[in-house]
Amino acid sequence: MLSLKHIAVSSFNENIAYVHKDCEAYKIDDIKNLTKVEIHGGVKPIYAFLQVCDDPKLVKPNELGLNTEAFKLINLPEGANISLTLAPIATSLASIKRKISGNILSAGEYASIINDIAAHRYSNMDIASFLVASGSFMTAPEVLALTEALIGEEVIRWDNENIVVDFHCLGGIPGNKTDLIITAIAAAYGLPMPKTAAKSLTSCAGVADTFSVLANVNLDETDLKRMVKENRGAIADYSKLPIATSSKIISSVERHLGLLQPQHLAASILAIKIASGVTHLVLDIPVGPNSRIKSTNEAMRLRKLIEYVGDMLSLEIDVVITDGSEPIGNGIGAVLEARDIMKILRNKEDAPQDLLEKSLFLAGRVLEFDPQLRGGQGYAVAKEILLSGRALEAMNKIIYAQGKAPQPKLGNLTRDIVASQAGVIESIDNTRINKIGVLAGAGQYAGAGLDLLKKVGDSVEQGETLYRIHSVSATDFAFANSVVDGNNGYEINTKGSY
Amino acid sequence: MLSLKHIAVSSFNENIAYVHKDCEAYKIDDIKNLTKVEIHGGVKPIYAFLQVCDDPKLVKPNELGLNTEAFKLINLPEGANISLTLAPIATSLASIKRKISGNILSAGEYASIINDIAAHRYSNMDIASFLVASGSFMTAPEVLALTEALIGEEVIRWDNENIVVDFHCLGGIPGNKTDLIITAIAAAYGLPMPKTAAKSLTSCAGVADTFSVLANVNLDETDLKRMVKENRGAIADYSKLPIATSSKIISSVERHLGLLQPQHLAASILAIKIASGVTHLVLDIPVGPNSRIKSTNEAMRLRKLIEYVGDMLSLEIDVVITDGSEPIGNGIGAVLEARDIMKILRNKEDAPQDLLEKSLFLAGRVLEFDPQLRGGQGYAVAKEILLSGRALEAMNKIIYAQGKAPQPKLGNLTRDIVASQAGVIESIDNTRINKIGVLAGAGQYAGAGLDLLKKVGDSVEQGETLYRIHSVSATDFAFANSVVDGNNGYEINTKGSY
Repeated sequence: MLSLKHIAVSSFNENIAYVHKDCEAYKIDDIKNLTKVEIHGGVKPIYAFLQVCDDPKLVKPNELGLNTEAFKLINLPEGANISLTLAPIATSLASIKRKISGNILSAGEYASIINDIAAHRYSNMDIASFLVASGSFMTAPEVLALTEALIGEEVIRWDNENIVVDFHCLGGIPGNKTDLIITAIAAAYGLPMPKTAAKSLTSCAGVADTFSVLANVNLDETDLKRMVKENRGAIADYSKLPIATSSKIISSVERHLGLLQPQHLAASILAIKIASGVTHLVLDIPVGPNSRIKSTNEAMRLRKLIEYVGDMLSLEIDVVITDGSEPIGNGIGAVLEARDIMKILRNKEDAPQDLLEKSLFLAGRVLEFDPQLRGGQGYAVAKEILLSGRALEAMNKIIYAQGKAPQPKLGNLTRDIVASQAGVIESIDNTRINKIGVLAGAGQYAGAGLDLLKKVGDSVEQGETLYRIHSVSATDFAFANSVVDGNNGYEINTKGSY
Repeated sequence: MLSLKHIAVSSFNENIAYVHKDCEAYKIDDIKNLTKVEIHGGVKPIYAFLQVCDDPKLVKPNELGLNTEAFKLINLPEGANISLTLAPIATSLASIKRKISGNILSAGEYASIINDIAAHRYSNMDIASFLVASGSFMTAPEVLALTEALIGEEVIRWDNENIVVDFHCLGGIPGNKTDLIITAIAAAYGLPMPKTAAKSLTSCAGVADTFSVLANVNLDETDLKRMVKENRGAIADYSKLPIATSSKIISSVERHLGLLQPQHLAASILAIKIASGVTHLVLDIPVGPNSRIKSTNEAMRLRKLIEYVGDMLSLEIDVVITDGSEPIGNGIGAVLEARDIMKILRNKEDAPQDLLEKSLFLAGRVLEFDPQLRGGQGYAVAKEILLSGRALEAMNKIIYAQGKAPQPKLGNLTRDIVASQAGVIESIDNTRINKIGVLAGAGQYAGAGLDLLKKVGDSVEQGETLYRIHSVSATDFAFANSVVDGNNGYEINTKGSY
């Protein structure tokens, strides 16, 4: 028996157990790193990885330390009696080896893998190998099995609603936060839309990052239900909701690896939407040479896959393939994107028209889930809701219900990137623009990002500003400056000016 | 500037930096887990992963803690002034994504990956994704490139030797420690053999584990050189030698994942042998349905691959494909295997004949690297060396030079696994036997393992002992007992007894 101690260290998503090298209950000589142990004493055993300590001020030979993540999970006071045993190897790891060898895994195997991940029986290395092994190919039934496994036990129920709508974009396009405008329009229309959003994985801003600029996004299930009931809409950071636990663990590893395979993305999105109780989903797949999905064929394959999984799990999905050839909107980064969205909702003349039009088009598709609405009327109804100011009103209600955020300032380290020659903007490279934005600090600081003053088709004079970099930290500013001169992401057709 | 503090925690192979959540030099709000940082102040910057601490007794806001691994590496006293910056993303990670997408990587890309791994720029998750991504397919030039990269800068030179021999077995066969007998014979013959050996990765005992029962295997480069000069042979744990650093980091992740792809294995073995200055290598590929390599075709492909890489790197390799259908020798686990080896060297009557014959055959191939020896004479010379007691004498010299080990005791928790019916042993399943041995504690405790009293072709009566389980710890003993009844790994042909 060892005495429990909290070691106030927060690590990545793994539980860590600290034992003294002369531990009284466990022979440390025999520990092979990385050793997985089962810790007993709480309601149910928890799993942790062992680290060996040689300082009694940290843990004594009769103590067992747990890092913050593990200490919360075991839910016992310091000093509690606990014991540890070597954890048996998670049997589902054998399935990962089968996947590496090119096999198709059964639904039972996916269920076991995801179950073991949820129980913290996998190290991050194990999760990484699962992601890479399954990332190279998965059949449609495998994606279905993975989706079902990811949904898990906890599903939010919307008892008095026949239709619960949501919208999701597969991403990869800088700017492009149609989500928030769509939520405002759907809520104003009266369709319940509990928009679950994520923070940035690899982009300049996730929907949750952008909305954080305007309001608190950390809602619990009770808040979310009440707000959707009252305002017909809410925007919540899904990571704070008690759903799709294993999907969150997996996505933290994906974030670290910078790896997002389409099949995993499809499974994870559909699992989160189903677990949040959504019945009708519009899904946007932007296609472009520098988008996540590069070709229409690829988008079509993904659409079929998503429709198949949705149909099997009774989620009504309308997949829309859109133009992802350049950034959407002007602002890239949370503060700048929030500015664009509020311009649109306020019907400002300088609101970005591409973001406005795309939002109305997609909001129209969402509204048409309403059986009362005549086919083809969605766009017009959405436009009327926006122009009349009802969308702004709905958004304001949502913001005040969730708690208005203290608006972060736009980064004041700025640099204008100018045209080296006169001409017409021929293309803007999403990947490059995203990279420059991330280096400038976007995704990390809300106030960092890029403000695009010119878009494809615009004419520019020599020396005219194409976009402005905003950084909050000097280090990030230097990073962005060090790469932008090599390739600023804009291609100018100089013949166009003659 | 922060003040350096040693946090006496030993983790897996990653460097960890601990910062207080109110760190004076780094804004923790903005840290995204898992954050890689560069720590400046030592001779060159070191890389570490950040963990956030909320206890000033552990680290104060003006301190930076480093775990034992990182503290050793930075080589500065506590209290030294250090600073940290966000580490740029290792550019070679892009190559791993290219590999996941099915591309062939260039030699330059392998060099960058391995270089970044050696510099601790990869997390274990990144290493896992490299292993899984490259594990599914690699071309021969890719394996060559990986091998060259793994060799690195540090190569042991044997200035006064024209030929430096070694032997390696691809493994997967329980027992089968021909290595030690071959070393004794080669040393007695006079060919210099600095046998580099490893501890168990996933097996009941590595060669280094087994020899640890007899002598100290922790030699440094100076010891190794002196001993080979004096005794013509030595057996060293390669992990203690300053060679193939990145290979060690990779193999710790492979060990955790339980993943050993043939191409990685080939590259890693050849790199270690070349880095240890070996010029002539005999390589044993055992083939069997429950061996690592399952078919002759597979073994042949691997042989060609190894010969290609060896030729390109001027390492003379004699690849031998052997029978890997059942365990070799009687003992499985370090103490029992060492017992078998000493029986053979002492020409005991009850020495296991299969291990004896295989060792002589392979030792003969090693001896034939000597240009003075007539082709086909190797086996006879090896046999003469063994029978005359010169091999034992050489082994004793090696043991005393390296430092005789306090012999660990055989585990005294035993159980005899008996034949349920009379008959003839038809097959012994390597994988199953290895699993039962590992569960019994072999690979972790030298004294744990299995003692096989019957081998394929032997007759047994009903109730006669097939093998005896030895465990040191009661937990392991229970583990082994819980699986052995379902399938004990032996198949008995009951017709054979009639």
